[in-house]
Amino acid sequence: MTETMQRIVLARRPQGEPVDEDFRLEEAPMPTPGDGEVLVRVTNMSLDPYMRGRMDDAKSYAKPVEIDHTMEGGAVGEVIASNHPNFAPGDFAFGMFGWASHGCLPGKELRKLDPAHGPVTNALGVLGMPGFTGWFGLMEYGRPKAGETLVVAAATGPVGSMVGQMAKDLGLRVVGIAGGAEKCKLAKDTFGFDECLDHRAYANAKALRAALQEACPNGVDIYFENVAGKVLEAVLPLMNVGGRIPVCGMIAWYNAGALGGNQQGEKDQLPKMWRTILVNRLHVHGFIISDHFARFPDFLSDAGPRVASGKIKTVEDVAEGLENAPRAFMNMLKGGNFGKQIVKVAD
Amino acid sequence: MTETMQRIVLARRPQGEPVDEDFRLEEAPMPTPGDGEVLVRVTNMSLDPYMRGRMDDAKSYAKPVEIDHTMEGGAVGEVIASNHPNFAPGDFAFGMFGWASHGCLPGKELRKLDPAHGPVTNALGVLGMPGFTGWFGLMEYGRPKAGETLVVAAATGPVGSMVGQMAKDLGLRVVGIAGGAEKCKLAKDTFGFDECLDHRAYANAKALRAALQEACPNGVDIYFENVAGKVLEAVLPLMNVGGRIPVCGMIAWYNAGALGGNQQGEKDQLPKMWRTILVNRLHVHGFIISDHFARFPDFLSDAGPRVASGKIKTVEDVAEGLENAPRAFMNMLKGGNFGKQIVKVAD
Repeated sequence: MTETMQRIVLARRPQGEPVDEDFRLEEAPMPTPGDGEVLVRVTNMSLDPYMRGRMDDAKSYAKPVEIDHTMEGGAVGEVIASNHPNFAPGDFAFGMFGWASHGCLPGKELRKLDPAHGPVTNALGVLGMPGFTGWFGLMEYGRPKAGETLVVAAATGPVGSMVGQMAKDLGLRVVGIAGGAEKCKLAKDTFGFDECLDHRAYANAKALRAALQEACPNGVDIYFENVAGKVLEAVLPLMNVGGRIPVCGMIAWYNAGALGGNQQGEKDQLPKMWRTILVNRLHVHGFIISDHFARFPDFLSDAGPRVASGKIKTVEDVAEGLENAPRAFMNMLKGGNFGKQIVKVAD
Repeated sequence: MTETMQRIVLARRPQGEPVDEDFRLEEAPMPTPGDGEVLVRVTNMSLDPYMRGRMDDAKSYAKPVEIDHTMEGGAVGEVIASNHPNFAPGDFAFGMFGWASHGCLPGKELRKLDPAHGPVTNALGVLGMPGFTGWFGLMEYGRPKAGETLVVAAATGPVGSMVGQMAKDLGLRVVGIAGGAEKCKLAKDTFGFDECLDHRAYANAKALRAALQEACPNGVDIYFENVAGKVLEAVLPLMNVGGRIPVCGMIAWYNAGALGGNQQGEKDQLPKMWRTILVNRLHVHGFIISDHFARFPDFLSDAGPRVASGKIKTVEDVAEGLENAPRAFMNMLKGGNFGKQIVKVAD
């Protein structure tokens, strides 16, 4: 056991897109586990879009990361010291260790990993928070019915690929949206989407809408919202009467300051949206997955076997080394990742 | 029985606010009831904001009124001839007779009025479509709980006053918004609202929001949406986590062309709205009451006794004469009515 650990802290609040100078890699003393605590050597950490929100000082559902504090995030690793009866050295566990080489948390905040659930990194993606987000939003608020049509963007990300694969398995027509031909191929060939549109191939929301309309001849019953922006504008008029929109994110707007509004001075889209909600009797449900962790066991028992059997697949994009986490994060916010973005911190 | 009837037709589609020239009063032959049909002499007709939507040619949940056709609407009247076993001359019935002195419809499309439900005009307001809209939206999508706070605008209209009075009866704090001090007094003194704000007293959404915040010290759990515009902008940031927004109308935007967007070139409000839905985990439900008429008997059995006992009150604004319907309608769209707007067509 070394006497110091490494961590990445928030050096300052980003203006728009984060840049290198917003992060700082530093050494810190190795923590000593107190009563009931467990010390973990992190092997893999997760990068997720929600972390962008934590970097801003805006009022949100969670407190922002403070300046000079470790960037927040989930990670998996090996227990190297434990004062908690449920954990022993050599166990693997998931916890909110942050962007760091080691983490020390109360044992009750950790989840021991079940080898039946495949590689430990599954706990960061397909069987972790992102997969749970997709599963819960789809099942609880999407209320999928066989024969319906679902649209989801960021189709190859860990949320979108869970949503699409679950919906396919339940008998829906699934149309994805992704950035680039390679991701669209992944969505169709690996994740089994019926269709996937490359949003970069369409100059504006109107052009994307025309392509979506063709891909969804019976309209759209469920739009699983994780990106907003141009995709939202394109999909909204295609929603069928009684359609459902679970809203778990809006990555297209995450860099737009306090998300206060359109940066291009376009006209107000709110009246049109509100009218569509009324006329098409839509049901829009915002949700934050951390409210619903009581349902996590339901998720594991439903999705776990589908992952184990290969019915639900996962693709990971692995950055090497903690020091590369900021770059990988910035790249992910621009859609540069290919599958679930992970950082390999140690073997 | 005269040999002609009077009716008001849509002379042309309005540009923005309707004007006199958009309507035309004309004579038409008195219809003769066919098999199963009932002829009714209209005594009172209803004026409702949804009728503004029918005047436009835009795609909506219902077909527009065609040029030179009778303006649509609900009315009550006395049966004067019947070929349907359930109706006899002298009965009073509700039906979609339109803006007309007489109407002839299949008996199965009419509803015979129950004297236990008070004056026949109750069937146009508190115990008709508007009251049902308020009751259903509140109960089904608002999911009211004692101790919560509800905000509703157009507080003295037939929808808003039902929503507010039902919510009060269920133990909620009820804050109304209305146009003018007199309506606010009506909302508080007659309908029993805890508070009512005069939106005209506030220069903009921000000022209205500050006043609302004071009136809703525990935030807003249910915003019953029937007006949109400035009120929506004011309320949205005050919504509590898990808040519900039943959306039944948006009168503030009804005259805005095809409702395509903000007419003042203000910045796009959609990202802020969408973010609030996510961060505050809101549930937004558009609904069109005509989808839910199967629940009308539930409504009558719940609200009927409350109206009969005087627990739920109603206030009517009566225009005299069919020829004055267009003016009364235009006035209502500007909020000039005081209570449920009715036209007395005949004694």
